[in-house]
Amino acid sequence: MTQAVRHDAMRARNLALVLGEVSARGSVTRAALAEITGLAKTTVSKLVGDLIEAGLVVETGVVRAGERGRPGMEVRVSGERIAAIGLEINVDYLAAHVVDLARSVRLRRTQPVDNRMAQPGDVIANLQDLALSAVDEAVDIGLRVVGGVLAVPGTVDLATGTVRRAPNLGWRDVTPLPLPRLPFPVRVDNEANLAALGELWFGAGHRDFLHVSGEIGVGAGLIVGGEPFRGFHGFAGELGHVVVSPGGPPCRCGGQGCLERYAGQDALLAAAAGIEAGAGIAGLLARLDAGDQDALAACERAGWALGVALSSAVNLVDPGTIVLGGIYAPLFPWIGGVVTETLAARLGEMREVVPSVEVSRLGAEAATLGAAGQVIQRIIADPAGLLNA
Amino acid sequence: MTQAVRHDAMRARNLALVLGEVSARGSVTRAALAEITGLAKTTVSKLVGDLIEAGLVVETGVVRAGERGRPGMEVRVSGERIAAIGLEINVDYLAAHVVDLARSVRLRRTQPVDNRMAQPGDVIANLQDLALSAVDEAVDIGLRVVGGVLAVPGTVDLATGTVRRAPNLGWRDVTPLPLPRLPFPVRVDNEANLAALGELWFGAGHRDFLHVSGEIGVGAGLIVGGEPFRGFHGFAGELGHVVVSPGGPPCRCGGQGCLERYAGQDALLAAAAGIEAGAGIAGLLARLDAGDQDALAACERAGWALGVALSSAVNLVDPGTIVLGGIYAPLFPWIGGVVTETLAARLGEMREVVPSVEVSRLGAEAATLGAAGQVIQRIIADPAGLLNA
Repeated sequence: MTQAVRHDAMRARNLALVLGEVSARGSVTRAALAEITGLAKTTVSKLVGDLIEAGLVVETGVVRAGERGRPGMEVRVSGERIAAIGLEINVDYLAAHVVDLARSVRLRRTQPVDNRMAQPGDVIANLQDLALSAVDEAVDIGLRVVGGVLAVPGTVDLATGTVRRAPNLGWRDVTPLPLPRLPFPVRVDNEANLAALGELWFGAGHRDFLHVSGEIGVGAGLIVGGEPFRGFHGFAGELGHVVVSPGGPPCRCGGQGCLERYAGQDALLAAAAGIEAGAGIAGLLARLDAGDQDALAACERAGWALGVALSSAVNLVDPGTIVLGGIYAPLFPWIGGVVTETLAARLGEMREVVPSVEVSRLGAEAATLGAAGQVIQRIIADPAGLLNA
Repeated sequence: MTQAVRHDAMRARNLALVLGEVSARGSVTRAALAEITGLAKTTVSKLVGDLIEAGLVVETGVVRAGERGRPGMEVRVSGERIAAIGLEINVDYLAAHVVDLARSVRLRRTQPVDNRMAQPGDVIANLQDLALSAVDEAVDIGLRVVGGVLAVPGTVDLATGTVRRAPNLGWRDVTPLPLPRLPFPVRVDNEANLAALGELWFGAGHRDFLHVSGEIGVGAGLIVGGEPFRGFHGFAGELGHVVVSPGGPPCRCGGQGCLERYAGQDALLAAAAGIEAGAGIAGLLARLDAGDQDALAACERAGWALGVALSSAVNLVDPGTIVLGGIYAPLFPWIGGVVTETLAARLGEMREVVPSVEVSRLGAEAATLGAAGQVIQRIIADPAGLLNA
C-alpha cells in the first residue's frame, strides 16, 4: 500500500466515523466530536469542513460553551443538498419518494396503474418516467439525488438482481430485472423487507418486530435487534403464503388456503362485494365508515385469518412486537381488534404476554421509505465517495 | 489492573486461542500453533504443556517435520479426562449422556417414566439419581464431568432459569426450575433449541437448517450460519403450535388444530389405534414393518400435517435444509416422502428449489448431545477456569 492510498483509506474511515456520530447524536460540536472519536481537534475541523462543503453536514447556528470555556457551533446532518430515491413497483401502483439525507420525505409521487401480467420492461419504462420527473423536481428544490433502491412485491436474489417469483405480477425468474436508467446507481430488493426497514428507520422506534405489509400480496419483514432477518436464500417473510386453512382456496403460489386468499387486498374487496372496480381500499373504507355489513364482515374474516397466520409466525419466530402496515394501516380500526383477539386466544396459554399488535404510521409508504433509507444508511456509513465525486 | 491480574487475563486469552486452534484443526504441532497464533514458540510450548497437564489436550504420537526441519509432535483435544453431561426431561423418559471433550459419546443412560403432570421437584429428584449414577460410571472410566445442561420440552427464560410453559408436562411458570444437585454447575435450556445445536455439532455438517424434534410435543430449532435463532423472548421454534387447520382439535396450548395434534407422538399413536399402552414408537414401528394399514395411514396423515406446517415455516424463515429428528428419525421411511411431496406441492411455484428434507442421524439423542455440546463449547472457548481448579 502506498502512503497516498493509506492516507485515503484513513480519511475515508475518519469521515465515516465523524458523520456517523453526527447522525447518531442529532447535533454536536466539533470539540465534542474530537472527544468522542479520539481524533485531534484540527483533524475533526478539517473533516467537518469537507463534509460541510460536500453538503452532507451543516452548522445549526446553536453555539455551545466548550468544556474549557471555548464556545463552538453545533453541526448536524444536512437535509438541504443530498437525497435518495425510493422506488416501488406494486400490483396496482408505481411510487417514487425522494428523501433527504436528514431523513425528511421531500417528494411523494405515485401513479395508479394495473401491473398484473405486465411485461417487466414496460413496467420499468413507466417507472423510469416517474422517477426522472421526481429527480427533476428534486433538482428544482436544490436536492441532488445520489442513489436509489427499487422495491418489488416478490422474492429477490440480491446478488444477481433477479426477481425469482412475483406471483401477483405474473413474473418468474426475471434475470436480472432491467432497472430504470437514472443518473445514479439503482438496486432492487423485496418490498416487505424494505417496508420493515422503513418502519425501523422512519417508524415508531422499535428494534425487534415483525412488520406486515398488506397489499394485493401480503409480505412480512422481521427485524431482530435493528437488523433484517432474510433467511438462507433471502426469501424469508412470505407471510402471505403461510397456511390459514390447508384445504382452502387455491393460491397463485401453488398452495391452498394461504393468508393472501383471505386477507390480501383482492380477497378482501371480493369478500366485501359490490365495490366498484378501481375504488380499491378507498371504496372499502367509505363502506366501512357507512357501517356496511358486508364490508365489516370481510374485515372480520381478514383479521381472523391474519390472526391465525400471525399465531404461527409468533410461535416460529417470536417477534417483540407486530406492526401492521400497508392497507392494514387504514383498515386497523376494523381489523386490529380481531387480530389481537385471535392471537390471544391461540397464544395465551403458551405465553405470559402476547406480542402487541400496533398500527404502522407509514402505511403504504413504508417500502419506498425503507428503499430510500437504505441509500441514506450507505452514505452515512461511507461518505467518502460523495466527497471525491 | 495489577500486573498479576493482567498476566492472568492474557494467559486465559492465550489458552483459549491455542485450544480453539487445536479443536478447529483436529491435530497440529506446537510449531504450527506458534505460526498460526503469532505467539512465541516458548509461550505456545508452555500453554500446550499446561493444557496437557490439565487433561484437555494430548499428544497424538504423530511426528511431523517442521518448516525449518525440526520435527514436532502433533497434539489434539483429549477425550480421556474431561467430560460434560447432557440431561433431558421429556414427557415419557429421562436421559443422561456423558460426552468427552473430543465429542465422543461415552455413556448413554435413559429411563422410561411418565412425567405427565408430575411435580417438577419429583422429576428432578429422579433425574438427579440418574445423573449421579452416570457421573459415577464416568469416574470409573477415567472421566471427570465438569458441567451439565438440562433440556426440557418447554419455553425457557435463560436469564432466570424459569420454565415458562411446558404444556405436555403440565408445567407453568416454574420460577426457577429446581436443578439437580451435582458436583458441577447445571443450566436449563429448551429441548428443541438444544436438539438443533446437537445436529449442528454432532450431525451431518449443515450450518443453516431447521431441525424438527418430534416427541410428545413437536419443537424446532433454527440454526443460521452456525448460530441458533432464538427470537425476542427466546421462545422461537414452537413448530408444534403452528396452525395446520384453524378449526381442528383443541390443543393444550389453547389453540386449535396445531401441528402437535396431528403429528405429535400421542396423536400419531392414537391415530394408528390399537397400539398397547407403553409400546410407544417401537410398537408403531413394528406395526409399520408388518404393513398395518391403520399405522401407515396415521403416518401419512402426520407427514401431510408436518408438510403443511413446514411450508408455513419455509415461507417465514427460509431455512437452507430441513432435518427431521426425534421420533421422525425412525419414522422417516414412512413420513419423509409425504413431507417432501406436501412441501413441493405448496412451495414449488414460489421457489426454484424446495429445501431438502433429511433424516437426523441422532434421532432422540440430539437434545442431550446439544446439551453436553454446549458445555464443551464453553470449555474450548474459556479453558482457564479448568486449569486453575
